[in-house]
Amino acid sequence: MFNNSLKKFINRKRETKGMINIDPLQAGGILTEEARRALIEWGDGFSVCDFCQGKLEEIKNPPIYDFIRETLPKFIGADVVCLTNGAREGKFMITHALAKSGDFIIIDKNAHYTTYVAAERAGLKIKEISNSGYPEFKIDVNKYEEAINEIQSEKGHMVLILLTWPDGNYGNLSDAKKLAEIAKKYNIPFLLNTAYAIGRMPVNMNELGADFVIASGHKSMASSGPIGFIGMKKKWEEIIMKKSQYFKKKEIENLGCAARGVSIMTLMASFPNVVERIKDWPNQVKKAQWFSEEMEKLGIKQLGEKSHQHDLMFFESEKLHQISQKHKRGAYFLYEQLKKNNIWGIKPGLTKNFKLSTFATTKEELEKVLKTFEDILKEN
Amino acid sequence: MFNNSLKKFINRKRETKGMINIDPLQAGGILTEEARRALIEWGDGFSVCDFCQGKLEEIKNPPIYDFIRETLPKFIGADVVCLTNGAREGKFMITHALAKSGDFIIIDKNAHYTTYVAAERAGLKIKEISNSGYPEFKIDVNKYEEAINEIQSEKGHMVLILLTWPDGNYGNLSDAKKLAEIAKKYNIPFLLNTAYAIGRMPVNMNELGADFVIASGHKSMASSGPIGFIGMKKKWEEIIMKKSQYFKKKEIENLGCAARGVSIMTLMASFPNVVERIKDWPNQVKKAQWFSEEMEKLGIKQLGEKSHQHDLMFFESEKLHQISQKHKRGAYFLYEQLKKNNIWGIKPGLTKNFKLSTFATTKEELEKVLKTFEDILKEN
Repeated sequence: MFNNSLKKFINRKRETKGMINIDPLQAGGILTEEARRALIEWGDGFSVCDFCQGKLEEIKNPPIYDFIRETLPKFIGADVVCLTNGAREGKFMITHALAKSGDFIIIDKNAHYTTYVAAERAGLKIKEISNSGYPEFKIDVNKYEEAINEIQSEKGHMVLILLTWPDGNYGNLSDAKKLAEIAKKYNIPFLLNTAYAIGRMPVNMNELGADFVIASGHKSMASSGPIGFIGMKKKWEEIIMKKSQYFKKKEIENLGCAARGVSIMTLMASFPNVVERIKDWPNQVKKAQWFSEEMEKLGIKQLGEKSHQHDLMFFESEKLHQISQKHKRGAYFLYEQLKKNNIWGIKPGLTKNFKLSTFATTKEELEKVLKTFEDILKEN
Repeated sequence: MFNNSLKKFINRKRETKGMINIDPLQAGGILTEEARRALIEWGDGFSVCDFCQGKLEEIKNPPIYDFIRETLPKFIGADVVCLTNGAREGKFMITHALAKSGDFIIIDKNAHYTTYVAAERAGLKIKEISNSGYPEFKIDVNKYEEAINEIQSEKGHMVLILLTWPDGNYGNLSDAKKLAEIAKKYNIPFLLNTAYAIGRMPVNMNELGADFVIASGHKSMASSGPIGFIGMKKKWEEIIMKKSQYFKKKEIENLGCAARGVSIMTLMASFPNVVERIKDWPNQVKKAQWFSEEMEKLGIKQLGEKSHQHDLMFFESEKLHQISQKHKRGAYFLYEQLKKNNIWGIKPGLTKNFKLSTFATTKEELEKVLKTFEDILKEN
């Protein structure tokens, strides 16, 4: 039926299906059965708009209104929630709404690359808070106060303080509560990037004292992408969700409606499951700590905070690096040997430093991962 | 298993499934079987990133690189294509990249609301080109030249000319080629909003002479949303796809990667089908014209251009309006009676004016639609 050159675009199979998945990017976004059913039911382009009266978040059938206006704010301890196309888009919405060109944003050195790009797109100057360096790469939030004083002494204007919680490299959970107090003292809005937290672990924005949180559906809430949301204090609603001068119902920063597709249906369908799974968070932390200890017994060192408080971890192995230098497959040997053993998630070409997540895997699967690392170290 | 109050979020069925769908928003976004299979295979959060090396558009497996860098540009006659989260996000990317605050954009009065909101978000002043008013609401592109001269005489700076092609209210296809000549004469970039064109009808950007086109996957390319893309001339690549000063591979305006989820897989999976279906465009136009004539025989007047050149049409019926004023269900009677007859897509509360699309329906189904309108007019 189709032109031969186009056949490559159809019936593509996912090669990594069924593998033990320790990719930090993917571990929190694996769909629930409920979300898979939602995909089929609501997959068509604008299907969620069947009963729309002009605003995605106000659709009552399916119950998007209930979900966004009532359930999600309660779940994350925010006053108001608005949908976004993802965490990065949420960061840009906030920075763009708050910023005048040339203003400062203060961010942690461990921030995701999209924090830099969102700030750059919004015309902001970036002030970085350095981490403690090797081996823990911790963020001491007291340094934010020093940075604030420095910018103030140069008459700079600060529009936002941002902390990545946890960060996506080391999985460090810095002292967000203390930073909230500093932000309050200087009256600067405080955004907590929780793309790796909300959906995996309990997060309460108001208890933490943040002005904003951003969340990612595809990263941590068992949803198809792209989708995310912003949680905020009531006082920011009028600025972030400002209405267009041309169309009274439409918000400027989300261009009317953000994630207007099936992703909102998968986010919603997985939500009851997500509520359940975060109750298991203490066990997730125990599992991560156990895995870290077992890796260290193999001589593979866990960097970042210890004892570790998150499933995302960064490892260092001088030994694996040495093997790669003699191995006929070079730096790709680790990736390939893990793949051969049905383990997915360490990026091709990495041996000395790599990150992984224990979130989506059982202890039995992690035992297989450990055994595989042990064998690789022995055999080579 | 779940808290009772959360059960409403799972197993939601789409009430409109299996109905004759004449909703212009939905007619071009109904998935193909290939796209439905892609949804299941690639639904997990960041599944398309399995083999990513830092940039969505450069992923070779699945063949996103081939699709975005080679196949799509050829398909739409553009030099370069970049992915977006949708048509509105594409408009914002372009206006934001080109604009300095206070600059002008010239748009047609029939533009989609998101054109206004995107321009507003980018800090642009909007100059509107009026339409010819009732009954055809045509855009005379010569008026753009008058507007350009007017702004020039006031020393205003213009960053963009935009035409909605077709517009989403009347389905009018204005003279894009002529406007391209005007844009060229004054050296102002020209953006053609083809959210209702690419994927339904043949579009060749270079032949039309535009600098940019924007397209919508969920509106017109049988894809799940949100997803779209920008087609552009090579000379704009460096501005629209400018790289971050912090991360050399990452583009500022799309925050690194736009539609990083299953939507790119459905867009790709439906593409061979889309290539086939646009070959049938002359028959689509004939079908629309036939439907328009039959509606007029019932006394329901088609507004917008005649003879009509697009499946999206706007109708006016004084008679249906009169019925609604006496009907016990008031203005909702038309929506409800159509729904009872398995016809979906006229917004609740509309009777005097409504739009619809004949794109996704067979002639037999449209005969049923016509018969239903006839019965409604007779019975009331």
